[in-house]
Amino acid sequence: MAVSPGGVPDPDLLARARLLTAPSLDASLVREVERITGRRAEPMGSAPPDGPHLCVGAALPDAWRTGRLVWFHSVNAGTDALLSGPWPAGALLTRTVGRMGERIAQYVLAWVLAECQSVPEFTAQHARAEWRRLPSELAAGQTALIYGTGRIGAAVAGLLRGCGIRTVGVARTARAVPPPGFDRVIGAGEDSGALATARWVVSALPLTGATEGFFGANRFAAVRGATFVNVGRGATVDMGALETALRDGSVRRAVLDVLPGEPAAPGDRCWRLPRTVITSHSAGITADEDVATDFGTCWGDLREGRVPRLAVDVGRGY
Amino acid sequence: MAVSPGGVPDPDLLARARLLTAPSLDASLVREVERITGRRAEPMGSAPPDGPHLCVGAALPDAWRTGRLVWFHSVNAGTDALLSGPWPAGALLTRTVGRMGERIAQYVLAWVLAECQSVPEFTAQHARAEWRRLPSELAAGQTALIYGTGRIGAAVAGLLRGCGIRTVGVARTARAVPPPGFDRVIGAGEDSGALATARWVVSALPLTGATEGFFGANRFAAVRGATFVNVGRGATVDMGALETALRDGSVRRAVLDVLPGEPAAPGDRCWRLPRTVITSHSAGITADEDVATDFGTCWGDLREGRVPRLAVDVGRGY
Repeated sequence: MAVSPGGVPDPDLLARARLLTAPSLDASLVREVERITGRRAEPMGSAPPDGPHLCVGAALPDAWRTGRLVWFHSVNAGTDALLSGPWPAGALLTRTVGRMGERIAQYVLAWVLAECQSVPEFTAQHARAEWRRLPSELAAGQTALIYGTGRIGAAVAGLLRGCGIRTVGVARTARAVPPPGFDRVIGAGEDSGALATARWVVSALPLTGATEGFFGANRFAAVRGATFVNVGRGATVDMGALETALRDGSVRRAVLDVLPGEPAAPGDRCWRLPRTVITSHSAGITADEDVATDFGTCWGDLREGRVPRLAVDVGRGY
Repeated sequence: MAVSPGGVPDPDLLARARLLTAPSLDASLVREVERITGRRAEPMGSAPPDGPHLCVGAALPDAWRTGRLVWFHSVNAGTDALLSGPWPAGALLTRTVGRMGERIAQYVLAWVLAECQSVPEFTAQHARAEWRRLPSELAAGQTALIYGTGRIGAAVAGLLRGCGIRTVGVARTARAVPPPGFDRVIGAGEDSGALATARWVVSALPLTGATEGFFGANRFAAVRGATFVNVGRGATVDMGALETALRDGSVRRAVLDVLPGEPAAPGDRCWRLPRTVITSHSAGITADEDVATDFGTCWGDLREGRVPRLAVDVGRGY
């Protein structure tokens, strides 16, 4: 194996690797990837080439999961679908984060402030030509519990904190020195007290074996009137448990950008959840320019012999 | 006259002044004012007392506009109604700002992000059980033009800037060193270029002789697709000119927390403005605790012989 376990492909192998791009990629993005690497792109077909190759795309068919794959750059941030099959030993996986943290943070803050300022209620009242005072909440002084303390969780925390919201991160284990944006970081096993006092519970969790159904009956039962916002992955939530918590009032409202199954059909049970808004997996859209920028960053890191900062730990799944 | 023109009442006069509070004040607020001043409050009746007095309230009837008024503390931030009549020479006027800046800033950011994230559209889509992608805008990199660079304008600017929005303040005259929150501050006479490039035009202007109808046909004609948000005073806007600008598209949307006449009757023309939401003068509500805090601050300033930081320049009107 010519790839080090640390995740940096052998420079000679990388220099010889052919560049393959998914057919779904826009032509201008392909040109940009060609410009960055200085080599011609070939379209990913039904079978991989014989020699070492690097790929840029969204999905990796089984036939491509060989020891000849040197590096796969994902045009998306979420790599759970890529990692649902066995990952080729030694192949580097990098991902596009883009301005996703910033975009998702603005999505979360938009829905937080919309609730505080009764935006949907005022919109409805306006449609009835009704001028009437409605309650508003000052977000400052409230507490948000943010699951996931990586780039996206940190971006969410930073923006909420700018509005005076106390930000408590939840990671696998507590951290003595919280990362920027967080007032403190607790471990996932010790979150029940924090769930009870939070006004906002925001999940930016990736989907891994450890997070599937993570928000289940026990966690939701600990909530005391918080609004639940999911910008992570749909399958981290037990939808039946969420429904129970919404019906009994422990969860005040829910804003779900992600669902276990997308898109939701018109007859899906999710549309009948009380006090819930479902959006169309739109919080963290990735623009082509984001893909090119992040691919270029990975390329630059590799040329300097560094593990790309956007590398995915395929064991942990993020 | 025992009150200096600088606005600090003579200490002896202040020491002798009786405390009068408006009958509309909540009993717990009156007790708090009594606690701060160490004197008993009397209710404001039909006529003022013979000797020097200080008042806490919302309105000042004509009979009370005498040379014996030492100090009036307004429970509101807007003092235009108080200053629509002649102000007694030498009387100090202070006001409650409270957390109004913070509240108004959160209101503005809520509506800015609601538009960027299609909050009303997603809410409507959800009601139809429809899962469909909708466009979103990243606010970062956009420009907001903020009229009014005082406490409220600065709070708005600070919060918008936290989302990566470039903040340009508009004051009576340009300032070489912009106050915190602003990237730069231009003069009101040189705003047409900035109006053309702004994505957001936010007014936090007070109502004075100089600002009545300030947003008229000329200013709105200079706008190129910005959303107009008014959290200042309704009469600063020529509503006919706004309607024209909304109909011809130069103003993209409008969010109006204030109107020339409030409340708006169900038949009011304002309800028929296109792409507009009217809220009920609710952006900057003042809580009783805000009044007590700000009155206490003024009291402390006066005891130290300083012009209270919440004093109103009765000549300028704010």
